[in-house]
Amino acid sequence: MRVEVPLRKSCTLINHGPTTLITSAHGGRRNVMAAAWVMALDYEPPKLCAVIAAGTRTRELIEASREFVVCVPTLGQIDLVYAAGSSSGGDADKFARLGIATEPASRVAAPLVAGCAAWLECRVVDEPGIQERYDLFVAEVVAAWADDASFRDGRWAFATPEARTIHHVHRGVFFATGEPHTARTPA
Amino acid sequence: MRVEVPLRKSCTLINHGPTTLITSAHGGRRNVMAAAWVMALDYEPPKLCAVIAAGTRTRELIEASREFVVCVPTLGQIDLVYAAGSSSGGDADKFARLGIATEPASRVAAPLVAGCAAWLECRVVDEPGIQERYDLFVAEVVAAWADDASFRDGRWAFATPEARTIHHVHRGVFFATGEPHTARTPA
Repeated sequence: MRVEVPLRKSCTLINHGPTTLITSAHGGRRNVMAAAWVMALDYEPPKLCAVIAAGTRTRELIEASREFVVCVPTLGQIDLVYAAGSSSGGDADKFARLGIATEPASRVAAPLVAGCAAWLECRVVDEPGIQERYDLFVAEVVAAWADDASFRDGRWAFATPEARTIHHVHRGVFFATGEPHTARTPA
Repeated sequence: MRVEVPLRKSCTLINHGPTTLITSAHGGRRNVMAAAWVMALDYEPPKLCAVIAAGTRTRELIEASREFVVCVPTLGQIDLVYAAGSSSGGDADKFARLGIATEPASRVAAPLVAGCAAWLECRVVDEPGIQERYDLFVAEVVAAWADDASFRDGRWAFATPEARTIHHVHRGVFFATGEPHTARTPA
C-alpha cells in the first residue's frame, strides 16, 4: 500500500542512488523519462537535484509547470524504465504508448507511476544559471510516498527480489540493489 | 591493477549511484570524507557534482585547492567508509588515524584511497552561487582510474562479492551493488 513518508525522511528514498523515472505535466500534456542523474541535496526542507536535458518534452513541461515527480521504480519495471528512457515524448502520450499506469500526486500535477517503490513530489527552486549551463534542476520535495511493503519505519526492507530498486549502468543494463551490510561502529 | 579509464567512459564509474570517499589536499594538509550525494553531470568533457558541507575540513581544503578525488570504495571497505564519514578532519591526519593507505593521483594533489574500485580526479568549476546556497560543487573529471579486476572494457564486472561497490542507506547500513539485469530492447 502506498503510504506518505515524512518529509524529513524522504532523502532516504534516494540516498542509495537508485535510477528514477521523472514525470511532468502541464496544460493537458504529460511525460515520463528515465533519470539516473538524480541525488538528494538537503534534509530540511528536503531538496534534490536532477539533470533534465534541454530540448526534451520533459524539460519543456517542467519549465512551464515548475513541478515534477521523481518515481523510484523496481526491478520488476526495468523494461518499462528502459523503454521510457529510450523513446522521446514527441507528440504522443508516452504513458498510453508504453502502457504505464498512473495515480494522481497530492501536491503537483505530474502523475505517480503506479507500481514503483517510492515517489517524491517536487517543486522547482529557480536556479536559471545552472539550469542553462548544466541542465541541472534544484527542487524542494513537497510530498513523499513509499510502498509500505518495501519501506517501513523510515527504512528500506524490500518485500521481494523483484521489488528491489535499480541502478542503471549503460544501455538497458541495471544493477539490482543488493543485500544490506552494517559497518562496525567506529571507535 | 589500477588502470586509466578514458574520460568519455568515466561517468560509468558512478552512474549506478555508489557511495564515495572524497579526498582533498592543500598546503601539506589532507582529508577524506564519505559522500553519498555525488552524481554525474555531463559526458564530454565529463563533469560531476557533489555536496561538500560548509564548515568542514574537506570544504576548506577544496576551496583552497579547487581539486578533489572521488574514490569509489568496495564492500570490503565499509568499516573504513563509515569511520571516515563519522569523524571530523579536525587537526589530526584522518588517513593516519584510520590507517587508510593512499597512492598519489596523476593530475591533482588529493590522494587516491588504496583498494577502491575506481577513482575520479576532479577540478572544481567555479559556481559560487550554488556552493554557497546548497554546498553543491560542480567539477570536471580530469583523470579516471579503475581496478581492472572489476572494471574492464568500459563495464563493471566485480571480481568478487567483497569487490562490489556500496550504497549508503543510513547510519552505517549500506546496500551492496546487486546482480546485473538486462532490460528487453524497446520495440
